Amino acid sequence: DLDPLIPEPCVPFSLQIPNVVPAYLNLHYTCETGSRLLFSSVIWVSKLPVFRSLPDDCQVQILRSCWTELFVLGLAQSAPQLAFSTIVTSLVNCFKAAVVQEKLTAARIKLMADNISRLCDFVQNIQRIGVDDYEFAVLRLLLLFSTDNIRREPMRHSTSLEGIQDIACRCLRVHIDQSHHPSQSDRFAKLLLKLPALRTFNANTMEDLFFANLIGQVQID
Amino acid sequence: DLDPLIPEPCVPFSLQIPNVVPAYLNLHYTCETGSRLLFSSVIWVSKLPVFRSLPDDCQVQILRSCWTELFVLGLAQSAPQLAFSTIVTSLVNCFKAAVVQEKLTAARIKLMADNISRLCDFVQNIQRIGVDDYEFAVLRLLLLFSTDNIRREPMRHSTSLEGIQDIACRCLRVHIDQSHHPSQSDRFAKLLLKLPALRTFNANTMEDLFFANLIGQVQID
Repeated sequence: DLDPLIPEPCVPFSLQIPNVVPAYLNLHYTCETGSRLLFSSVIWVSKLPVFRSLPDDCQVQILRSCWTELFVLGLAQSAPQLAFSTIVTSLVNCFKAAVVQEKLTAARIKLMADNISRLCDFVQNIQRIGVDDYEFAVLRLLLLFSTDNIRREPMRHSTSLEGIQDIACRCLRVHIDQSHHPSQSDRFAKLLLKLPALRTFNANTMEDLFFANLIGQVQID
Repeated sequence: DLDPLIPEPCVPFSLQIPNVVPAYLNLHYTCETGSRLLFSSVIWVSKLPVFRSLPDDCQVQILRSCWTELFVLGLAQSAPQLAFSTIVTSLVNCFKAAVVQEKLTAARIKLMADNISRLCDFVQNIQRIGVDDYEFAVLRLLLLFSTDNIRREPMRHSTSLEGIQDIACRCLRVHIDQSHHPSQSDRFAKLLLKLPALRTFNANTMEDLFFANLIGQVQID
């Protein structure tokens, strides 16, 4: 029997989309979405019984070390509701304006362009597979309880982390077998192989892109 | 039938250990090992038929984007022959000397300490699972043919990359079933879940640690 690692009510990931008329979609919409997405991700995680059972400082440490991954995964999951392509256009425009105004160093520009392009690839990739809510929930759990994300001494040396990963993987396997993807024998591996890409996003750059830093610099609008 | 994605002669990973008397193990041994390890990794990859079949510039692009991952995986695979703990001691000593001499910025020191610690964790983690040569070969293949490592237009949009990943995963599954690990139903997932950690090593820092840059700065020996 599999533990109820992700109880039914914990499966969905809900995001309240900013209430803006599409014609006015712009960088503020992007930043507003970014903040809500981060907030929703933290809420989702904090409802998870297995996460709540951790000591407080350990919870903080985990959230600090993988907020970027949670954020990008949430973005991929919410992309259809979010008018993702509009967000990307807004980021690219803002980024171009910053380049023209020479407010950013070449290294930072390169990082930003690279992160935007990786973000598009990742979202496109996830959408092509058609990941469902339960699968997103397991991926989120796996990135939270990755052995190398948790570097707090008492946690690192326990085997409980690997135990959680094992159970999460078994849940995912059962779900794939029982769900609408029984014919896709490669689906399990395909999903796990999406995790490495999440590690490539640069936290500072994601902050620049989604959390207002850039607005202060280029004064869009 | 599974394609011979990793032909028999391609499975082993051979590294010629520098011929140094253990008493003199020091930073030069580490740098010498680093160079040989990188060289062996490139040789291993270049023998792989599926890699050789790629256009030259694509081969170069892949090696550039994932040399750090190949390097760390090779280090983990060769750790038992390499007196890995001695290498770590040498890196830490060298690093301490650099800190004392205040030749490094705080940010660089933090990155170095973090990368050394992650390296130890990763190697320890891999050793605990007891990964065999074939499994290392598949992991190497998976990181080479990761969809987000290859950003060259004609490659990105083809499905051939995912095809290679699928076959590699099937080979790994068959190998685990047939090999000495039939009882470990979680082994397949455990191995795939080692890949994200490989993405966290910083290429510049690994260069600093293993490829002579640091020697020039701290003048050890």
